Amino acid sequence: MSKHVAAFGEVMMRLQVPGYELLSQASTLNYSFSGTGVNVTAALARFGHTGYLVSTLPANAVGDAAVSYLQKLGITQSFIRRDGTYVGMYFLENGFGARPSRVTYSNRLESSFNTSSEGTYDFHNMAKKIDVVHFCGITLAMNDSVRHHMKTFAKAVKENGGTVVFDCNYRPSLWGEDGYEKAKPHYEEMLHLADIVMMNEKDAMFVLGMKTEMEDRREQLMDLIPAVAKKYTISVIAGTHRSINGNNTHSLSGFIFKNQTFTFSKRLTFSVYDRIGAGDAYTSGIIHGEMEGFSPEKTVEFAAAAGMLAHTIVGDTPMSSESEILRTMTESVGDIER
Amino acid sequence: MSKHVAAFGEVMMRLQVPGYELLSQASTLNYSFSGTGVNVTAALARFGHTGYLVSTLPANAVGDAAVSYLQKLGITQSFIRRDGTYVGMYFLENGFGARPSRVTYSNRLESSFNTSSEGTYDFHNMAKKIDVVHFCGITLAMNDSVRHHMKTFAKAVKENGGTVVFDCNYRPSLWGEDGYEKAKPHYEEMLHLADIVMMNEKDAMFVLGMKTEMEDRREQLMDLIPAVAKKYTISVIAGTHRSINGNNTHSLSGFIFKNQTFTFSKRLTFSVYDRIGAGDAYTSGIIHGEMEGFSPEKTVEFAAAAGMLAHTIVGDTPMSSESEILRTMTESVGDIER
Amino acid sequence: MSKHVAAFGEVMMRLQVPGYELLSQASTLNYSFSGTGVNVTAALARFGHTGYLVSTLPANAVGDAAVSYLQKLGITQSFIRRDGTYVGMYFLENGFGARPSRVTYSNRLESSFNTSSEGTYDFHNMAKKIDVVHFCGITLAMNDSVRHHMKTFAKAVKENGGTVVFDCNYRPSLWGEDGYEKAKPHYEEMLHLADIVMMNEKDAMFVLGMKTEMEDRREQLMDLIPAVAKKYTISVIAGTHRSINGNNTHSLSGFIFKNQTFTFSKRLTFSVYDRIGAGDAYTSGIIHGEMEGFSPEKTVEFAAAAGMLAHTIVGDTPMSSESEILRTMTESVGDIER
Amino acid sequence: MSKHVAAFGEVMMRLQVPGYELLSQASTLNYSFSGTGVNVTAALARFGHTGYLVSTLPANAVGDAAVSYLQKLGITQSFIRRDGTYVGMYFLENGFGARPSRVTYSNRLESSFNTSSEGTYDFHNMAKKIDVVHFCGITLAMNDSVRHHMKTFAKAVKENGGTVVFDCNYRPSLWGEDGYEKAKPHYEEMLHLADIVMMNEKDAMFVLGMKTEMEDRREQLMDLIPAVAKKYTISVIAGTHRSINGNNTHSLSGFIFKNQTFTFSKRLTFSVYDRIGAGDAYTSGIIHGEMEGFSPEKTVEFAAAAGMLAHTIVGDTPMSSESEILRTMTESVGDIER
Amino acid sequence: MSKHVAAFGEVMMRLQVPGYELLSQASTLNYSFSGTGVNVTAALARFGHTGYLVSTLPANAVGDAAVSYLQKLGITQSFIRRDGTYVGMYFLENGFGARPSRVTYSNRLESSFNTSSEGTYDFHNMAKKIDVVHFCGITLAMNDSVRHHMKTFAKAVKENGGTVVFDCNYRPSLWGEDGYEKAKPHYEEMLHLADIVMMNEKDAMFVLGMKTEMEDRREQLMDLIPAVAKKYTISVIAGTHRSINGNNTHSLSGFIFKNQTFTFSKRLTFSVYDRIGAGDAYTSGIIHGEMEGFSPEKTVEFAAAAGMLAHTIVGDTPMSSESEILRTMTESVGDIER
Amino acid sequence: MSKHVAAFGEVMMRLQVPGYELLSQASTLNYSFSGTGVNVTAALARFGHTGYLVSTLPANAVGDAAVSYLQKLGITQSFIRRDGTYVGMYFLENGFGARPSRVTYSNRLESSFNTSSEGTYDFHNMAKKIDVVHFCGITLAMNDSVRHHMKTFAKAVKENGGTVVFDCNYRPSLWGEDGYEKAKPHYEEMLHLADIVMMNEKDAMFVLGMKTEMEDRREQLMDLIPAVAKKYTISVIAGTHRSINGNNTHSLSGFIFKNQTFTFSKRLTFSVYDRIGAGDAYTSGIIHGEMEGFSPEKTVEFAAAAGMLAHTIVGDTPMSSESEILRTMTESVGDIER
Repeated sequence: MSKHVAAFGEVMMRLQVPGYELLSQASTLNYSFSGTGVNVTAALARFGHTGYLVSTLPANAVGDAAVSYLQKLGITQSFIRRDGTYVGMYFLENGFGARPSRVTYSNRLESSFNTSSEGTYDFHNMAKKIDVVHFCGITLAMNDSVRHHMKTFAKAVKENGGTVVFDCNYRPSLWGEDGYEKAKPHYEEMLHLADIVMMNEKDAMFVLGMKTEMEDRREQLMDLIPAVAKKYTISVIAGTHRSINGNNTHSLSGFIFKNQTFTFSKRLTFSVYDRIGAGDAYTSGIIHGEMEGFSPEKTVEFAAAAGMLAHTIVGDTPMSSESEILRTMTESVGDIER
Repeated sequence: MSKHVAAFGEVMMRLQVPGYELLSQASTLNYSFSGTGVNVTAALARFGHTGYLVSTLPANAVGDAAVSYLQKLGITQSFIRRDGTYVGMYFLENGFGARPSRVTYSNRLESSFNTSSEGTYDFHNMAKKIDVVHFCGITLAMNDSVRHHMKTFAKAVKENGGTVVFDCNYRPSLWGEDGYEKAKPHYEEMLHLADIVMMNEKDAMFVLGMKTEMEDRREQLMDLIPAVAKKYTISVIAGTHRSINGNNTHSLSGFIFKNQTFTFSKRLTFSVYDRIGAGDAYTSGIIHGEMEGFSPEKTVEFAAAAGMLAHTIVGDTPMSSESEILRTMTESVGDIER
Repeated sequence: MSKHVAAFGEVMMRLQVPGYELLSQASTLNYSFSGTGVNVTAALARFGHTGYLVSTLPANAVGDAAVSYLQKLGITQSFIRRDGTYVGMYFLENGFGARPSRVTYSNRLESSFNTSSEGTYDFHNMAKKIDVVHFCGITLAMNDSVRHHMKTFAKAVKENGGTVVFDCNYRPSLWGEDGYEKAKPHYEEMLHLADIVMMNEKDAMFVLGMKTEMEDRREQLMDLIPAVAKKYTISVIAGTHRSINGNNTHSLSGFIFKNQTFTFSKRLTFSVYDRIGAGDAYTSGIIHGEMEGFSPEKTVEFAAAAGMLAHTIVGDTPMSSESEILRTMTESVGDIER
Repeated sequence: MSKHVAAFGEVMMRLQVPGYELLSQASTLNYSFSGTGVNVTAALARFGHTGYLVSTLPANAVGDAAVSYLQKLGITQSFIRRDGTYVGMYFLENGFGARPSRVTYSNRLESSFNTSSEGTYDFHNMAKKIDVVHFCGITLAMNDSVRHHMKTFAKAVKENGGTVVFDCNYRPSLWGEDGYEKAKPHYEEMLHLADIVMMNEKDAMFVLGMKTEMEDRREQLMDLIPAVAKKYTISVIAGTHRSINGNNTHSLSGFIFKNQTFTFSKRLTFSVYDRIGAGDAYTSGIIHGEMEGFSPEKTVEFAAAAGMLAHTIVGDTPMSSESEILRTMTESVGDIER
Repeated sequence: MSKHVAAFGEVMMRLQVPGYELLSQASTLNYSFSGTGVNVTAALARFGHTGYLVSTLPANAVGDAAVSYLQKLGITQSFIRRDGTYVGMYFLENGFGARPSRVTYSNRLESSFNTSSEGTYDFHNMAKKIDVVHFCGITLAMNDSVRHHMKTFAKAVKENGGTVVFDCNYRPSLWGEDGYEKAKPHYEEMLHLADIVMMNEKDAMFVLGMKTEMEDRREQLMDLIPAVAKKYTISVIAGTHRSINGNNTHSLSGFIFKNQTFTFSKRLTFSVYDRIGAGDAYTSGIIHGEMEGFSPEKTVEFAAAAGMLAHTIVGDTPMSSESEILRTMTESVGDIER
Repeated sequence: MSKHVAAFGEVMMRLQVPGYELLSQASTLNYSFSGTGVNVTAALARFGHTGYLVSTLPANAVGDAAVSYLQKLGITQSFIRRDGTYVGMYFLENGFGARPSRVTYSNRLESSFNTSSEGTYDFHNMAKKIDVVHFCGITLAMNDSVRHHMKTFAKAVKENGGTVVFDCNYRPSLWGEDGYEKAKPHYEEMLHLADIVMMNEKDAMFVLGMKTEMEDRREQLMDLIPAVAKKYTISVIAGTHRSINGNNTHSLSGFIFKNQTFTFSKRLTFSVYDRIGAGDAYTSGIIHGEMEGFSPEKTVEFAAAAGMLAHTIVGDTPMSSESEILRTMTESVGDIER
């Protein structure tokens, strides 16, 4: 059954050097617009839900281009404010083999989204229209004003009986020195508000400062996640373990912890075309499974397959339909579809 | 010794999304013109024969572009009629890893080729000028009028002492429900007319409804193909077994059955750049080997190498010369040629 | 005040050779999706209205791409059915100077839109949600089934108190031999249903078979249009006179006939980048002016400026905002805006 | 009636910077293959004749690309030898307004064509198959060996009753210092062999050293051309007067002198997209008119219109059909053809 | 005689939509790096001088790309500091005819250049190595810190006997409300330091608040400029009058005031391909003329021709050599150079 | 410590078909400028040294483009002469899997570099300014005049106390029949002049005609290289062993022989994007290690890592900084850098 899902987050302009040249070799860039909130709502819109983005974009040519792009992705734009002057940007140079991809951010702190003052969003009315809201740790890292928006919105949704999703997504470069210390109180506040949380054992250990005696990743996970769920009264915790192989393939296995029980997906190994944003595809799969009432087994396999397919898609934003993901869960690699 | 070879078949416009974007992401398409008959005659023209295409194209800008493209491939266009209004088209989105390639056809049933009425081709005179003619099962699936053309032309060539090649090439989507049943009488008619047939055990089982007790593909093949050759009095039957591996490689082994004897090629495993049309390269290798009087061993290795190289070439149509194929048969993967 | 506007019409795929090459010279195409209904609703959406397209597109990759493209243009897609198999297409080769542009259609008669059977659209409910509906003569030329849809929808809107717009847009190639004769009864039926009609004296003379003694275009116009308005009880008739100059410029003057009075725009002369769809920009300007209650003077100047700007925009579909059009109406050609 | 026309000349690779960048700004080039002989035979093939190019190209990837390109243009390649190592090349940077286009040649003197030794072409047998042969002054400027080929071929054609066309086309940079003096004897030899000559009064004055008292171009022409025709017993002399206007347009008027009578075309003024090779389109129009038995009036208008259209076509080589040229002769600039 | 010329200014990244699409239509951008200082030093380096840019760029991939680009232009990069985090950017959408070009700035105030703290440049040592230094009003508009750099550097050069050039270049959007008032004291300080000033009567009236009774532009110029020269003891004042014509052409006439005498260039009218940065080409022509000791007549004609050619060049930065400019001063528009 | 390094060698224009099409399929080329000397000096400039190229380029548009390109790479161009007419060129078609890459040279023997007469370079003064000079066996293969330049320059540098590097780089196609015999005396002369030599056991066996009883490559190397070092009094000999694997990966291990001791790098296996020029990256690593006083272990690992990274970079010329290479030496393949 189709739901109304919102995400609160920044829209970034992605400026990608085509092919494998460096920025100092090429002369053209491909551009698109993305962000964790964009990726999650676009994926859910493709699954048949109504996906709202709650964000701010400038009323100029760059902001217009961003809105057009979001519309193309199927995102409903009625909760997007047009204000401020800049869009955050990042440059992407594709790696090849032994040479890793490289991301260079342009100034995002002065963006329309990050300079929106308090009271500018009508969270009260938005909360009435939506069933689920999604937040992530990247947004939480921005500044006090943005954090205030997040928490206000989360509370409003909760008060209206909606579901709050929080993706921990800790980025060290955004929090700076003593980052874990700075981040912890904000993370705890969000965890208390959240019903569904995306994280794994590393977030528990580093951001929340929890301890475990285990050494194996999965054992650490199974030791810590139930404690997190209990402490912050979280219904569902889900996440992935990723490993990067030498031959341009990644391996991914997903988990979901719900009703005191862990369910793990198969470990998928696959070639990677575009890695950025693939985590958001996994998140969208978990949210979709929960909204549709899938079994935990189906939810975690669906999310893992959605994540895998997102690595084969150009751009940050997942593009696969529910039926394409379901087919990937059951079939082996096939010949051309014709 | 250079021969005159004709193929009867439709010219399709291939509209391919560049790179790995989906049609709903991109804004440009690469176009080219192909078809089984185009691919086979172009390959044979590159081997030094005169390759005629017998087809119909509209007398408009799209038809002009098709003719120019066929000329570029070295195809002799004097047997191409200009009539009707449309060219059949298909869209191709390249797959990557776990995401398969996807072909979407536009309306081909209204094409110039498929709406040519009886009596429009002068098969009688064409038959006098050619040594070999090639037909395929895709054309046979079109409509009664096209099937009538095929059979008329095949008989005319046979009466003039020419060689008839028929590639079974059964496409389920083209025959629709109860397809095997509908197709069988037409296939049988073509097999009776054919001297060289491209097929494998699946065609024997599914299209011709033959039975075997064997379970292994090769054993099925060795059980059924001699029976087919006998029943329809076919001199040469050739084909391939293909398997698709997870890591973007395919494996291919070819066979030829001639003088009651099977000859198999080495099993080749190779990276795939563009899979469409590679089967036609194998066919062109078999025809060339037969026309040049190669030993069955050389013919089947040549055809398999031609097929392998066609997977490394952009577009549907094989582009390798005889000497390039012969070199591939003997050398290991090399450094740059300079 | 923002209105709800729908258009009923086909979505065509435009396949354009980039630059000035011919289809037989190039190897890439730019693609986009357009159509009179697309152009008009997209333009009105950009002016702040809600623009619905009522159409049918196939549930395949080409249909998905079309829907994404329409969403990017800001069109609301909730009235678009997904059914059938094909999208109508046309190829465009850009002319230069003495060499005219050339359009080659692919088969549109088998398109999803043109093969939709009766009863498939829920016109009754759509009519309740919209203030204005737009139809055009191109759609009227398709087939009986499409014409039946048009008339049913027009009546439903009229019954709900909405405004019906009809753009005569007669295309000789679509009606074939004795076209005017075939077209006339259908045009008359639409004119009786319409409140706002886009046409000029040529439509009156050729399609409606009306006579005038005048020889000058404007005199013919002023003689015939009031008679049309009276006969079919049409509130507003608007249209343009275009002349094509040798130096790659066109001249355009618009008129509106309302309350028994003609109002003419300035005659605008301007360089042309992309002529297709510019007439729809003029239509959108007239509709906007009428919906906003502009004076006839402002409406016709606004429509003419919108039409002029559309000639400077890449693609069929107008992209200018209301403020950009208003600025063009008052300012002379300026230096860079920075 | 369709004729067999050959041209003897070099195939050059054209490497063009796309758009308006300089070679020191850009990083991609568009390439094509052309040459006076290529342009003339391709144009005549498009008019329905069989066009042979007599030339030499290396048996490597560049030579293969050239042959494919010529085939695409409709040129019959059976008289092209494959020998030597290099293809002559030139770089083209498009000018804009006040900045002229710039051509930079790479080494053409070492090309396959220019290093072909005597006796390599079977002119004797070629001459039997052709009705008309075309030569030009650029080829004449190369070296003694090439000149020997030219004259041998011209004589062979003449002996077989064929028509010899010679385009004077004097290029100062190719003949170097004292160029007129060096060139004159070779030009005279070709003029004695020729039936149809492309030239104007400048060739008569500078290459042939003839004198006139007239000062106006047309008067000089009318004074000198009859003398040339008489002295060298030439049946038809044709050529153009071109003037370059400031606003990116050129003006062109053609003449033909036949049976002691001058016929002039209208003076055409038109926008220029690609000027190179347009003179060859004029030549092809004259040859076509003469072969088809057009009146001098029709021939010269046809040639001028062919020349004008060639300025609107991408690349050196004319692409217009006979019917497109005839339509241009009668119609004014039109709207889109659809 | 070759001089050492420095410019102090920001490097901007130009992100241009190719062709005539809007940012909300396209998906690729062409990028380059420019700025008034970049344009002037690159032009002078092309004339044979050593051109230093004094600026700051971040030590990341974007900064590396900028440095590579400046090196390609021939700029000596030894005075470029690598510090800070961002490069200022602007987006450019090309206008066409009635639709003006549009520039959208991204955040430049946080750029490496604009956040360089005092004492970071070693102006003392730089001043010893250079003969001429160039500053402009855009830089002056940035912030106090940048203004302090400018004035410190200007004084250092002056003390070392070098020449100070100041281009007034007032941009209203950069100074904001009451801009003229804020700007005036800074402009006056720079004018007192400058030897060569680029300006016209508008700068005198609006920035310096001077009054004139004249109404005609040239009369205003001739009234005010001598007063400015006298008041601020400036040796040379030069500038242009530009008018923008409807047909995509501009007209430009240059002046130089030196030794109490005005010299004017011819009024040039020309087609415009890329207008941005063309003013810097004019400036570079004036500086070159002064450094080479050209007569005022030659200097002003050279500068005007340099300016005109810069309008025909892709990108902000002039690319013409001295000989190309001199040729343009004497020749009419020519045919292809080959 | 930053050094002054020069290389003497030809600049070649690389004309590469984009993607995987053949030259006979495509219509665009990417171009760049490279050569062994270009690659080595550009790599060393990126490591912080001053890199001079000693070469000759024509004073035309192609030469200008080459100079701009070299400047972009960070090469100091003050030792580049502008003379002659042509730049050597090569066409590159990318291989895929079983189909090898193919290089087709255009005429390089007539290039500006290869036709420079004696006495044109001021080697005497150049030698005073540089610490190290690099030569290679490709240049040695050209002609007597070029060889004379090489030896003269090597002697001049040696007399000034500089270091001479010689890369054996024997190309059979350049020396023709009996190539080893022709080459040997010139190689011996260069080896006598060299301090650092790039070679492996094959050069010793084939060019120098040395014998070994060993059969294993490494044993042959360890047998022959010390003898070479001794015979020609060479301080440092370094080189690689490469093997090409079926799955589009190469394996590389480097060695350095210095102070009578062999040091070997780890054997690196990696995916290959662009193989051309990667050997020059290895050379640049050896030179940098020697200039910086790295231990042999660090030098050979640094050179091998530099070589590996160069296979992942678009174009012939290495683009990695010292810090990127050092990081690759220590880290495993990572996720995106952001």
